[in-house]
Amino acid sequence: MTDVAIVMGSKSDLPVMQAAADILGQFGVTYEIDIVSAHRTPEKLFDFSTNAHKRGVKVIIAGAGGAAHLPGMIAAMSPLPVIGVPVKSTNSIDGWDSILSILQMPGGVPVATVALNGAKNAGILAAQILGSANEKIQRKVIEYKVSLREEVEKAAQSLKK
Amino acid sequence: MTDVAIVMGSKSDLPVMQAAADILGQFGVTYEIDIVSAHRTPEKLFDFSTNAHKRGVKVIIAGAGGAAHLPGMIAAMSPLPVIGVPVKSTNSIDGWDSILSILQMPGGVPVATVALNGAKNAGILAAQILGSANEKIQRKVIEYKVSLREEVEKAAQSLKK
Amino acid sequence: MTDVAIVMGSKSDLPVMQAAADILGQFGVTYEIDIVSAHRTPEKLFDFSTNAHKRGVKVIIAGAGGAAHLPGMIAAMSPLPVIGVPVKSTNSIDGWDSILSILQMPGGVPVATVALNGAKNAGILAAQILGSANEKIQRKVIEYKVSLREEVEKAAQSLKK
Amino acid sequence: MTDVAIVMGSKSDLPVMQAAADILGQFGVTYEIDIVSAHRTPEKLFDFSTNAHKRGVKVIIAGAGGAAHLPGMIAAMSPLPVIGVPVKSTNSIDGWDSILSILQMPGGVPVATVALNGAKNAGILAAQILGSANEKIQRKVIEYKVSLREEVEKAAQSLKK
Amino acid sequence: MTDVAIVMGSKSDLPVMQAAADILGQFGVTYEIDIVSAHRTPEKLFDFSTNAHKRGVKVIIAGAGGAAHLPGMIAAMSPLPVIGVPVKSTNSIDGWDSILSILQMPGGVPVATVALNGAKNAGILAAQILGSANEKIQRKVIEYKVSLREEVEKAAQSLKK
Amino acid sequence: MTDVAIVMGSKSDLPVMQAAADILGQFGVTYEIDIVSAHRTPEKLFDFSTNAHKRGVKVIIAGAGGAAHLPGMIAAMSPLPVIGVPVKSTNSIDGWDSILSILQMPGGVPVATVALNGAKNAGILAAQILGSANEKIQRKVIEYKVSLREEVEKAAQSLKK
Amino acid sequence: MTDVAIVMGSKSDLPVMQAAADILGQFGVTYEIDIVSAHRTPEKLFDFSTNAHKRGVKVIIAGAGGAAHLPGMIAAMSPLPVIGVPVKSTNSIDGWDSILSILQMPGGVPVATVALNGAKNAGILAAQILGSANEKIQRKVIEYKVSLREEVEKAAQSLKK
Amino acid sequence: MTDVAIVMGSKSDLPVMQAAADILGQFGVTYEIDIVSAHRTPEKLFDFSTNAHKRGVKVIIAGAGGAAHLPGMIAAMSPLPVIGVPVKSTNSIDGWDSILSILQMPGGVPVATVALNGAKNAGILAAQILGSANEKIQRKVIEYKVSLREEVEKAAQSLKK
Repeated sequence: MTDVAIVMGSKSDLPVMQAAADILGQFGVTYEIDIVSAHRTPEKLFDFSTNAHKRGVKVIIAGAGGAAHLPGMIAAMSPLPVIGVPVKSTNSIDGWDSILSILQMPGGVPVATVALNGAKNAGILAAQILGSANEKIQRKVIEYKVSLREEVEKAAQSLKK
Repeated sequence: MTDVAIVMGSKSDLPVMQAAADILGQFGVTYEIDIVSAHRTPEKLFDFSTNAHKRGVKVIIAGAGGAAHLPGMIAAMSPLPVIGVPVKSTNSIDGWDSILSILQMPGGVPVATVALNGAKNAGILAAQILGSANEKIQRKVIEYKVSLREEVEKAAQSLKK
Repeated sequence: MTDVAIVMGSKSDLPVMQAAADILGQFGVTYEIDIVSAHRTPEKLFDFSTNAHKRGVKVIIAGAGGAAHLPGMIAAMSPLPVIGVPVKSTNSIDGWDSILSILQMPGGVPVATVALNGAKNAGILAAQILGSANEKIQRKVIEYKVSLREEVEKAAQSLKK
Repeated sequence: MTDVAIVMGSKSDLPVMQAAADILGQFGVTYEIDIVSAHRTPEKLFDFSTNAHKRGVKVIIAGAGGAAHLPGMIAAMSPLPVIGVPVKSTNSIDGWDSILSILQMPGGVPVATVALNGAKNAGILAAQILGSANEKIQRKVIEYKVSLREEVEKAAQSLKK
Repeated sequence: MTDVAIVMGSKSDLPVMQAAADILGQFGVTYEIDIVSAHRTPEKLFDFSTNAHKRGVKVIIAGAGGAAHLPGMIAAMSPLPVIGVPVKSTNSIDGWDSILSILQMPGGVPVATVALNGAKNAGILAAQILGSANEKIQRKVIEYKVSLREEVEKAAQSLKK
Repeated sequence: MTDVAIVMGSKSDLPVMQAAADILGQFGVTYEIDIVSAHRTPEKLFDFSTNAHKRGVKVIIAGAGGAAHLPGMIAAMSPLPVIGVPVKSTNSIDGWDSILSILQMPGGVPVATVALNGAKNAGILAAQILGSANEKIQRKVIEYKVSLREEVEKAAQSLKK
Repeated sequence: MTDVAIVMGSKSDLPVMQAAADILGQFGVTYEIDIVSAHRTPEKLFDFSTNAHKRGVKVIIAGAGGAAHLPGMIAAMSPLPVIGVPVKSTNSIDGWDSILSILQMPGGVPVATVALNGAKNAGILAAQILGSANEKIQRKVIEYKVSLREEVEKAAQSLKK
Repeated sequence: MTDVAIVMGSKSDLPVMQAAADILGQFGVTYEIDIVSAHRTPEKLFDFSTNAHKRGVKVIIAGAGGAAHLPGMIAAMSPLPVIGVPVKSTNSIDGWDSILSILQMPGGVPVATVALNGAKNAGILAAQILGSANEKIQRKVIEYKVSLREEVEKAAQSLKK
């Protein structure tokens, strides 16, 4: 049983989506990773979406490019919070297509959209969601924020020299 | 058995989508009309998409607004040509969201996209598709083009006065 | 102690943001509602953001228009999941400014962005987040999805007549 | 006699448009391929558009970039379904010019628009159109969809290892 | 024989295009006005475009909305300078479609594009073109510029009171 | 005395603007070429704009990038037809800034705008303007159109092989 | 002698630009207000721009719509800080034209651009500029910020009831 | 004590922001330079913003990319004029996100926005602001404008050869 399921529409999304897995690993959150294409494997989409919460998954991260229907279609069928990652794919129109296809969901079926290619942030958001009911994970989120601050402070120091 | 199935994501799309039905009626093409929501009735979406061609439907017209996944998801599951109508809904971002969600389909799964709110053109395109294998319908398409020309000529006449 | 804190940058955002409160009420989720302006009450912004999780808040919903910094600045200081609602305010450039100011957060500090004026979806997303650790709320989310389906079915019926 | 005519506005469109020919060949659909420039060979445009259906052509695929008038002008004169491929040419404004010039046709004269540089999808759509009146081609479309699914499944397998 | 031919794609463009005629009348330039639809009257388009210069027309003003092919198609067939007026029609996407369809002509076939709904400027530009070979008209253009200045001065005066 | 004055805002625009000079040379039209910066040499801008027509110049071609004020400011002061070439410069926002700064002139002061980086078309348009009062140049424009057609025909031939 | 000069391209900009005057009055800063059109009164533009600093003006606020050249042209000729206000005029393309024409100035000639229709902010910015060398004005800016905070606090109070 | 404080959201903004420091050095204006991240070092943001004017800083230049909240948040807390530099960072959507996040500030809290990557212009603007109360700096600004003109004249000369 894993806490977070990471899915993507195509293997070509992996270089972007890997960052979600990496940061979850860093937070000690368990995850699974799979390819589920809304347009090419609709049955798998149905199976995955209707069953994820029954298998114990708590948050879904879904990345896709172009006319990106994967996050929204999962959200249509799963009661879990779905985080959508717009991927800037080849022949994308500067990423606008994936952003709008994921963000502009109709009333009743939200997708928690993050920035273009923002898979790392999707992972952090998943940790924050888990952390809101799990003190240990929330503490790691807080520590992570401290590390971000320290990084900037170090860079600021190096600038002064 | 009907030649064309017209579906839309929400009843609020009807004022736009009615134009597809009207022009098909004018061409003497049979059609059915229904509401199928990708996000709110995913099972119906699957049933409709996987069975339409088995019921004898030859062309599908699908209209939706915002993050419009309906035309693309039908195209994912049906071997029929799917015509997508981007509908400019409330809270749409000037229609860009529905256009890009319908148009920018990935390789392998085309949607024949028409202009924003272009349901009338969707109906004409459906008739042209049927007409490419049916001389009687094609003749009606040709006659329709003549009527378009005559309308402009009349307008031009009235301008001269 | 409330589960969800709804904040907005200006009282003029209330007609949009009210929908988040309404749907949370419908799900039986407790919430508080307040005005916190990133640009006009920065001290309140700091107090709110650094303390919300200590007071027991589990999810934050933040709505703002134009150069909308409120959701992102809260996310900078709170370990909680922050849902951002881009509000289409007067003099907004079709909503693009609020969408991009909320969505395009840098690596490390995610905001879960929903559609333009999508406060209702922000409320549902908050419920889904709570529901991922609370079976009772998740069941209500599932029931809500059923009600969406039934609404469409009723509309489809009425269309057939 | 060929089923599909593929035309493009300039020889520089060939690297994009070749994909339409390739996939049609794969489906066993006959096609011809030619350069017809709306702006540089208007007489040829007229000849081609008014005669294609008389020569037995059933579907036209037209690709062009920039202020792309070729698909729309063919659609003005031919009763056949015209599939438009927006090509992202040099000095194009990110492809927006070709997309909007092809998509936003006025009422009465539809063009079935596919994604930016989506020539492959244009070929598949042409096969689907032919297939709606030709069981053999429709079966190939169905088989093609199966192959898409299998490809994803293989990629998903390789990911798991 | 008239110096300027004003054409438009649809009678619905007249309220915008009338301003071109009005200002030409004010400059004492002769003009004719007609409806020529690239998509609905392609034969008339050909006749008009190939013959205008033979009839003594010196400048063509062409207005159209949406996927506006009229100015570019005239320019494809006429050696005369063609001024294009993007008209913001119903279902236009904020005018972007007509602007890009008229402006982004390929190398070899220019259209002199003016602002969205800028028919008045199209008329002035036609007068400037005629004026570059006709001293009397050029003098009127110069006088017109003086009148513009005086108008601003009057407004500035009224502001001071 | 030259017929056409080509000016540009910066020497970095020369690689784009050279194409205007080249095609004018090909048409046997005389031209001069200079750098006039609206923002860095405003006095020269005034001198140039108010005197060009007195020196016998008949058409002005002005190219600039970014917030491109050169074509519009010349048009403010000269009675001559001004052709504006939007140049896609470094740090331009995909060319949108130069296009809109040149195209969207207020009523009273037109600029004949051509496509992004469309200096060649600016040269052809200048020749067409001169040609509307000069049979010899108009004939060259007609011959040029024939050469465009022949080029396409040759390309079409080579495709068939 | 006045500290701030407010100019605008057309009397129709006054309803927007008045807000700059109002807030300056509130800060006790002296100002003058005039119409200066870059395109219709270029001589006045030159006089104004080259002389303002000699007359003792310390900051210039310039508002204009469409292809808005006024702020940039003043900045070309005046050593003073120039604040540009993009005005959303009729036939503007959602304000994009005025924003980009004012914002995207080339290296060497800055314009301090504020939000679309942001004349009030232009006035505040002018006061901040004056205040950086004038303690009395800076104190008023600080007090103004306090008043903004109090307004929000009052609104927040009223929300709680 | 320095006159101008240059801050940026990330060390990766330095290659762009360095140009502000360089030009200020050229004008003989003193400056400090630091990294202050709105999202990663919010406490430092507060300290910096509320104290800069107390330390004698007179103008603040702030650069940031993506959802760029730094300039606006400083402006929320400092009475000083804040110049915002939109930086085109990786995964930025062509710079639109940083431009709109900085430019579209709400009424009451202005940011003086310059062009995309326009750090050099930010430096010049800072000098102009200081110069409006310091004759020596203003004279340097005037000399700088002369040098710009001379550069263009030299380039124009070289073009003539």
